[in-house]
Amino acid sequence: MSSIADSADPIFRLHAGGKIEVRSRVRLRTREDLARVYTPGFTRVAEAISRNPTEIHRWSIKGNTVAIVTDGTAVSGLGDLGPLAALPVMEGKALLFKEFAGINAFPICLGTHDTDEIVRVVKCLEPTFGGIMLEDIAAPRCFVIEERLQEELTIPVLHDDQHATAVAAAAALINAAKFVSKPLRTLKVVIVGAGAAGTSTASLFMRLGVQNIVACDRQGAIHSERPNLTDAKRWFAEHTNPGREKGSLQGVLAGADVFVGFAGRGVIAPEDLRKMANDAIVFALANPNPEVLPAEVQPFVAVVATGRSDYPNQIDCGLCYPGIFRGALDCGATRINDEMKLAAARTIAELVDAAALAKGKIVPDIFENVAPQVAQAVIDAAVQSGAVRPPSPFGQPLAID
Amino acid sequence: MSSIADSADPIFRLHAGGKIEVRSRVRLRTREDLARVYTPGFTRVAEAISRNPTEIHRWSIKGNTVAIVTDGTAVSGLGDLGPLAALPVMEGKALLFKEFAGINAFPICLGTHDTDEIVRVVKCLEPTFGGIMLEDIAAPRCFVIEERLQEELTIPVLHDDQHATAVAAAAALINAAKFVSKPLRTLKVVIVGAGAAGTSTASLFMRLGVQNIVACDRQGAIHSERPNLTDAKRWFAEHTNPGREKGSLQGVLAGADVFVGFAGRGVIAPEDLRKMANDAIVFALANPNPEVLPAEVQPFVAVVATGRSDYPNQIDCGLCYPGIFRGALDCGATRINDEMKLAAARTIAELVDAAALAKGKIVPDIFENVAPQVAQAVIDAAVQSGAVRPPSPFGQPLAID
Repeated sequence: MSSIADSADPIFRLHAGGKIEVRSRVRLRTREDLARVYTPGFTRVAEAISRNPTEIHRWSIKGNTVAIVTDGTAVSGLGDLGPLAALPVMEGKALLFKEFAGINAFPICLGTHDTDEIVRVVKCLEPTFGGIMLEDIAAPRCFVIEERLQEELTIPVLHDDQHATAVAAAAALINAAKFVSKPLRTLKVVIVGAGAAGTSTASLFMRLGVQNIVACDRQGAIHSERPNLTDAKRWFAEHTNPGREKGSLQGVLAGADVFVGFAGRGVIAPEDLRKMANDAIVFALANPNPEVLPAEVQPFVAVVATGRSDYPNQIDCGLCYPGIFRGALDCGATRINDEMKLAAARTIAELVDAAALAKGKIVPDIFENVAPQVAQAVIDAAVQSGAVRPPSPFGQPLAID
Repeated sequence: MSSIADSADPIFRLHAGGKIEVRSRVRLRTREDLARVYTPGFTRVAEAISRNPTEIHRWSIKGNTVAIVTDGTAVSGLGDLGPLAALPVMEGKALLFKEFAGINAFPICLGTHDTDEIVRVVKCLEPTFGGIMLEDIAAPRCFVIEERLQEELTIPVLHDDQHATAVAAAAALINAAKFVSKPLRTLKVVIVGAGAAGTSTASLFMRLGVQNIVACDRQGAIHSERPNLTDAKRWFAEHTNPGREKGSLQGVLAGADVFVGFAGRGVIAPEDLRKMANDAIVFALANPNPEVLPAEVQPFVAVVATGRSDYPNQIDCGLCYPGIFRGALDCGATRINDEMKLAAARTIAELVDAAALAKGKIVPDIFENVAPQVAQAVIDAAVQSGAVRPPSPFGQPLAID
């Protein structure tokens, strides 16, 4: 597949002029229309919001609008391509927001790599948006940025690559383990790639009851005696690898039930996965080039999933983020906590009926009406866990048609 | 008119849930669609842009997208209502961008009043947008912000309240003077309100050939002997008032041909305008409450114009900014210079046929296909004045349908 722009190529043709647009939701045909939706009409609405700021959620786009914020340093598995190259990717994310959850999402590709500045810019943008999705920001800055924004903003913030991917992987793990009839608490899970997605996925797996996770980097297993660990790797050293395993990835894979890759092609040979336990589960999630291709390992493992749209079992954050934000916006959530993420993961897993569960069907298809069900589960979890702002005395936001 | 939110009120009903939305321009119905416009398709486009950044204009929203940036400190004539209250106003501006010029415009309401920070945030936002329209930012910060952004960005920047209003007022002046058969160079123009719009309007009037402009504030005429002038007022003192007039607004109005108000109701009594010359021209542009109402002065002046949609002769920036940005985006303008503004003003004036010129018809109606003609004039002026970036060796941006 070429990466030279070519307007005869159907993919480039679909991207011509951008994949999204800003459109009117109101009629603008007469001077009377103008007087209502433009001047002087809009000044009455501005005054009403100025008197009671909670009215903003009813009379503006804020209550149904999410910023997709990136600095382009980790563009969809391709690395630091910069904020311009990130724009078509963010537009693609926005497409899913609207198609599956009716949310207005707008790309914000930032011309800075500075952590403090990114935090400051997003804080300045808060008035316009009902939520912030961080996207394709390289580790370790993504951890700090998300953490600081969650503290400093009153609207929900979610780093897609960490948490939405983790939610999708957790849903897939629930169903894959059910399919091979292994309880979650008995699984040995090997994760390769100790970056943004790896830590969040490990954390969510543990919340599901998984007890034995071993993370690996290029040097092999991450354990507490290794020197000079990054923050993310130190987290792994402190919270995972209960058997204090050391040595190579190939070594720790012996007898493992689950392989989860966030590292890209070349980190492992397909043959290495033969050392795993019977009925092995393989999530090769690097995008666009998975660690192994389904055809290479299907003969000797029970389940293979990737992040790609063109193979079965797509573990993609797109299964999660539209529904998570739909729920968060609808209930006025001030943050997206672990309870909400777990509820989303369990709901996505349940959408594949036990009878339908199969080698090539451990997650629902994104077109199977996933987001509304995720949204409802997220609302219930947000309310139960107290992540919701007090109801406005002026009524709930109006339903969006 | 009440400013209490009321969902039975037709104006509030039209604002419910926001007046704009972000929508898809591509089909998203099958997994094959997903593979093209989402992963892995968008990564090919990202790679192409990463190799040649000028491709961004063809394969993303950037080339047809404008940010409408405000801090909410001067919301549509109502003052410092804050960034939340500004959002419905910015949405209204976005409506006109799309309706009249096919441009995607997105509100960016900033939670900061700090000049350096606003400049810094907008610089960080540059990768996503093809142009920046500053809106409803109070003087004098608006001057500094616009000037610094024009220097530091490679995309065009326009402060709507200053320049688009000035262009509309200049167009109206050309036609009003023609209607009363007075040459522009002989006019005495009194401007009340030495803020953002006042300076820019005076400057453009002078470029049209007007020689005698006197600006007033609450203390009366601004002249070079007055102490403690703000930067904007010092500009007036240095560049206008060639007759060194002093004294009250009422005093300098004696014999004036044109009154231009940017100051709001109460600054002058309708009766004061009786002192003006025969066939007086009155532009009462404060919004939503003009300095005088048409009915109050029509008996003794030749032409009255306001900024409102519900009176004849609406002098509104909406006549200008959609066409100016359409032209600037289409020719790859790197800035919006005086030549482009003058071309826009003259084109808007010419859209009212000499035979159709009348007391109540000195500017075209905004629905009279103004923007495409303004865009063409702006393109010609941009090319002639060298405000255009060199053509890309990879072809022009694709036309937007």
